Amino acid sequence: MNHQAEAAAAAVDMSFLLNTARTLIRIPSWAGNESDAQRAVAGIMADIGLQTDVWPIDLPALKCHPAASWEIDREEALGVTGRLTGNGSGRSLVLNGHVDVVPPGDISLWTHPPLDPVIKEGRLYGRGSLDMKGQIAAGLAALKAVSDARINLAGSVRFQSVIAEEDGGLGTLAAILREGETDGAIVLEPTNLTVASVQAGCINFRIHVPGRAAHGAVRDEGVSAFKNAFGLYRAIEDLETSRNLNNDPDPLFADYTIPFPISIGTVSGGDWASSVPDHVSMEGRMGVRPDESLEDARSEFEAAVEKAAQANPFLSEHPPVVEWWGGRFFPARTNTNDLLIQRLCESVEREPGHVAAIRGVTFGADAGLFKRLLDKPVALFGAGDIRRAHRPDEWVEIHQLESMARILSRAIVHFCEAY
Amino acid sequence: MNHQAEAAAAAVDMSFLLNTARTLIRIPSWAGNESDAQRAVAGIMADIGLQTDVWPIDLPALKCHPAASWEIDREEALGVTGRLTGNGSGRSLVLNGHVDVVPPGDISLWTHPPLDPVIKEGRLYGRGSLDMKGQIAAGLAALKAVSDARINLAGSVRFQSVIAEEDGGLGTLAAILREGETDGAIVLEPTNLTVASVQAGCINFRIHVPGRAAHGAVRDEGVSAFKNAFGLYRAIEDLETSRNLNNDPDPLFADYTIPFPISIGTVSGGDWASSVPDHVSMEGRMGVRPDESLEDARSEFEAAVEKAAQANPFLSEHPPVVEWWGGRFFPARTNTNDLLIQRLCESVEREPGHVAAIRGVTFGADAGLFKRLLDKPVALFGAGDIRRAHRPDEWVEIHQLESMARILSRAIVHFCEAY
Repeated sequence: MNHQAEAAAAAVDMSFLLNTARTLIRIPSWAGNESDAQRAVAGIMADIGLQTDVWPIDLPALKCHPAASWEIDREEALGVTGRLTGNGSGRSLVLNGHVDVVPPGDISLWTHPPLDPVIKEGRLYGRGSLDMKGQIAAGLAALKAVSDARINLAGSVRFQSVIAEEDGGLGTLAAILREGETDGAIVLEPTNLTVASVQAGCINFRIHVPGRAAHGAVRDEGVSAFKNAFGLYRAIEDLETSRNLNNDPDPLFADYTIPFPISIGTVSGGDWASSVPDHVSMEGRMGVRPDESLEDARSEFEAAVEKAAQANPFLSEHPPVVEWWGGRFFPARTNTNDLLIQRLCESVEREPGHVAAIRGVTFGADAGLFKRLLDKPVALFGAGDIRRAHRPDEWVEIHQLESMARILSRAIVHFCEAY
Repeated sequence: MNHQAEAAAAAVDMSFLLNTARTLIRIPSWAGNESDAQRAVAGIMADIGLQTDVWPIDLPALKCHPAASWEIDREEALGVTGRLTGNGSGRSLVLNGHVDVVPPGDISLWTHPPLDPVIKEGRLYGRGSLDMKGQIAAGLAALKAVSDARINLAGSVRFQSVIAEEDGGLGTLAAILREGETDGAIVLEPTNLTVASVQAGCINFRIHVPGRAAHGAVRDEGVSAFKNAFGLYRAIEDLETSRNLNNDPDPLFADYTIPFPISIGTVSGGDWASSVPDHVSMEGRMGVRPDESLEDARSEFEAAVEKAAQANPFLSEHPPVVEWWGGRFFPARTNTNDLLIQRLCESVEREPGHVAAIRGVTFGADAGLFKRLLDKPVALFGAGDIRRAHRPDEWVEIHQLESMARILSRAIVHFCEAY
């Protein structure tokens, strides 16, 4: 098997990988407009000989699924999956990568244009280079390498190109519901080529904090919603501390000071400088522990907010309201001894200069859907550092994309097996 | 003189007063659209026999004046002044009232429609009933009463109907610059028929508080601008406390727990729930002591913010920026023994059931412009409670409007004198 795996790795076509990445980066795919990018992926899949399935996603039906979550209302959505079909005697594997990107934001902050990919000093720049168009290109390059090396797979490998990951995972949900079982899945995300066997969950909250309006000239007749909000903020800080204190810490999260952060991302309130604000809202994200349900996390949060409100004379009479909204990401954990994790680690070890490392990731991603809907082994794996995602001048190391494609081609052969 | 003053008071025409108030309330006059209301006032002035001056305000030129401040960019602005001309042997007096109102806001919060004035249980309801259209009607009724009672004034009395008070006083500035000197001014504002000889100043600030962005999943790699902002908020609270501690408190402000409040009215920052916010801005208003310059108040504020920033490791490297913006209101103080204040008090005392009281007001208004530009005696006087201004179901007591008109008609005769 090693011989075939190395043959596949050796067949990785870097011209194809980089051309694919650049083609996809050039296609805007934010704000729910992902169909052009999906059609481009489907065309590339067909070009490299994958059996390609393109289907319109029935969004109204999908949104009724209990695992559905989204923030963007789309008019149209496409599912795209390409397949190398095995003879049915081996394990099936899914690679999954999302074509949606976050918007470029303030263009003036970009040195390199977000939609005009630049290769410079071993880096590929552009919106989606890291998250996830570069990784899609590497994943497709892995399938192409297996195919070009004329490996006969025992199990099938599918590449799911999905929409809507950034706002909650409708695309992966649609692909799982359409395609059903798999023996394992690798969700492509920037893990710096570590093997992530565990992913934290993530839920979004919004807290509406009341106050009592008054003219600023007699501000003591009012109650500042902003000041009330900060009281709750402190309670949320305390909750984060207690949730991250652990006498038996998970070694997979040892790299993180705060593996399950609760972070307030937006705050807004008041509508006039000279009025005491009677309303402030805070939005944020709460990390969910891998073995915790979203419901338990929500309850703990709501209880902490309620307790803090009870200690505030005004809020005890006018309680704040906690709202759960937008994208939510289920946590996922796969045993580190699981075959998928082990095969992926072995594939990393075969890459010159690389040592396999298993880690957890604290960000939400689509891995949780494989865990929740199929309860099958799932790993996250990919090139580059997640910290450079969602930023101006997003970039990824080209040598990591290359290693990633080679490692994935090995992993496909090792997991699905050749005959 | 008392005989003539009482004749004027007896001539107050309540039908005229209420019709005028209702006519003006029906005309929207917020967001810089004050010309319709100004033309209506000019028409009413002409009807009651005032010499009426209507002029287009040269906004670009006016905005170059060092005392100019505004928040709304207007396309057009009218000045309107009506005059009862004396024979030149007495003191001249200005009454000043503003036609601009704050927007009604959420209409669903109004029991009575904001633009369709209702009289009920002795109250006049509607946007501007209290602040200041009802008071304009009372002021015009006072001039009409003096005229109807055929009092021959020694000094002239002018009624300035002004725009833009709510956003900084461009209208009063324009009227003062056009008309020049006066021996005294009464700025109509809701003082509950107390005589306000002193008005606090008020300045608007905006603080830009930086942070360092990071993905919420690794929030400890960022620095929350929101948390930084709250550190500054506490420093501002402390500054307010120290500015209001006074071993020798001004008895005119004895009614107020905090005569010179600093109040944060709006807060906003961050643009994504899952990012650590790298920017929060807070807007607020700072009360200025009557005998303090705006410059000194600003310096004290900036020093407090800077000191708090120095104590914060991140902000000491990335200092917050304080911006002074929008409307600013100069403080004003007139000696309580001044003739204007005394004549006004005597006029109150002549009103059955009323006892004169001299107080300070903590809100900003146009009185400061008379003080700053002309350095002449200025009082604030009017019906109703300022706390009901800028709110749904704004209302004013009709009997207070009536007393106000009678008191003002007496004050005109006492101050300008009759011959």
